[in-house]
Amino acid sequence: MADSRLDNSAASQCLVDGKPADTLSVLDRGLSYGDGVFETMRVAKGRIALLDYHLVRLRRGLGVLRMSADLADVVAELGAVAEQLQNGVIKLTLTRGRGQRGYAIPYPARATRICQSFAPVSYPPENAREGISLYPCETRLAVQPLLAGIKHLNRLEQVLARSEWSEPTYAEGLVRDTQGNVVECTVSNLFLLHEDHWVTPDLQYCGVQGVMRDYLIDQMQSSGQRVEVRRVGVATLRESTEVFCCNSLFGVWPVTALGDASWSIGPRTRQAQALAEQVIM
Amino acid sequence: MADSRLDNSAASQCLVDGKPADTLSVLDRGLSYGDGVFETMRVAKGRIALLDYHLVRLRRGLGVLRMSADLADVVAELGAVAEQLQNGVIKLTLTRGRGQRGYAIPYPARATRICQSFAPVSYPPENAREGISLYPCETRLAVQPLLAGIKHLNRLEQVLARSEWSEPTYAEGLVRDTQGNVVECTVSNLFLLHEDHWVTPDLQYCGVQGVMRDYLIDQMQSSGQRVEVRRVGVATLRESTEVFCCNSLFGVWPVTALGDASWSIGPRTRQAQALAEQVIM
Repeated sequence: MADSRLDNSAASQCLVDGKPADTLSVLDRGLSYGDGVFETMRVAKGRIALLDYHLVRLRRGLGVLRMSADLADVVAELGAVAEQLQNGVIKLTLTRGRGQRGYAIPYPARATRICQSFAPVSYPPENAREGISLYPCETRLAVQPLLAGIKHLNRLEQVLARSEWSEPTYAEGLVRDTQGNVVECTVSNLFLLHEDHWVTPDLQYCGVQGVMRDYLIDQMQSSGQRVEVRRVGVATLRESTEVFCCNSLFGVWPVTALGDASWSIGPRTRQAQALAEQVIM
Repeated sequence: MADSRLDNSAASQCLVDGKPADTLSVLDRGLSYGDGVFETMRVAKGRIALLDYHLVRLRRGLGVLRMSADLADVVAELGAVAEQLQNGVIKLTLTRGRGQRGYAIPYPARATRICQSFAPVSYPPENAREGISLYPCETRLAVQPLLAGIKHLNRLEQVLARSEWSEPTYAEGLVRDTQGNVVECTVSNLFLLHEDHWVTPDLQYCGVQGVMRDYLIDQMQSSGQRVEVRRVGVATLRESTEVFCCNSLFGVWPVTALGDASWSIGPRTRQAQALAEQVIM
């Protein structure tokens, strides 16, 4: 099943249940139903950035899907792989493992653990320095409180949203929900400086609760900055004075344009950027 | 990766891109994002029941996901596998193939085709004869018109709904949407005899458009029976005089109970059951 063209460029190493492998069973429920969760983590100087935040989200996802997995094994493996990789990206996937045909959860279910490492991503440095334009995605996120926030493997909405543009002019795309609320970008979360305080969309109804978002909220609040988590309409976005998107791989990118709206890059965004750089560099 | 305990009981044969295999690449987007579609088909006497309906839905799913796959190859493979299997179940999965990390669709994308065959399913014969009780699932389906109807690989809602009960008393579970509408069961569609005509829930907002449902609508309409496709509330379900659920594997099961509501099995349901048996036996 191996294809050397892809192996060199993509996964420099992959462990399945702790053993080197590049395939998994066609009976795995990760494939059959997207029945599992994943975390994409930045590795810098042999350590995983924001590991604690990743583990919190992972545990929350496992709880929502009523999956069990040995997190001590996960942590040990991540540590060893990160040390070997030194710099790059680790993608950890936990599926509910193999099953018969049918949605019913097999008992006992034994999770499949897939740990892939990738070379560092080289983002254009001007994204962080000069800001980015957002593509206004037409794809809307469904309101599903049951699955909101966690990073499960059902990601067709993101695939469709990201497929809407190919022009490199747009480094990211803005995604709203089916009720019109501004939720997030395709691979990152949003912060808006509105009436002199930070606002970030509430992700109880849809969207992925990014670890960089949670880290920044904690850091901002502990330095006395007000952060409001609430439903955000397009009007609020337009009225904001600074806008940025963030994730655990690229940190913070100021948003300077979306359609006919534009924002300048202010000092508060640069502060957030510095907070992100502290953990991902 | 093979596990002989599972191989005997589950997939008696599996082809990946036409070749015998029981694994696929960990880089496959079917695993990463549930980026693909599937069809589960009943094979009787060497032929696939309702093949044309399966192909119509498959083509619709590929269109929605903007995936391309050679359907002539698919049809040829299905025919050969069905002839060899004679009786049983074929599960065909088409994913967008392998890709780098990231939601953006790789160009050129080469679909992965997985064709699994399984032994015949032995359903309790009393389900069809005496009817079944439905479990009232708490899990609600999100309203997502973009993905409604097609049989994509993002099936966590069904996994969660099906995990709500384990008592064999319930052969199926009723699933509503987040707005309270009655949509379907976990692996089958619903028909209600209401004010002397058939009603089946509109699946433009969520749910899977089953091939048995479409076949029955066509058959009922061509024999002059009125079938109304519309949003269905709980009140309509309660007021109905006959209720059944259907899919392409078990055909038609009369529904006789749901919570404190009960229905008798009438002649119109037996007619529908006969129509289903014509194609799956």
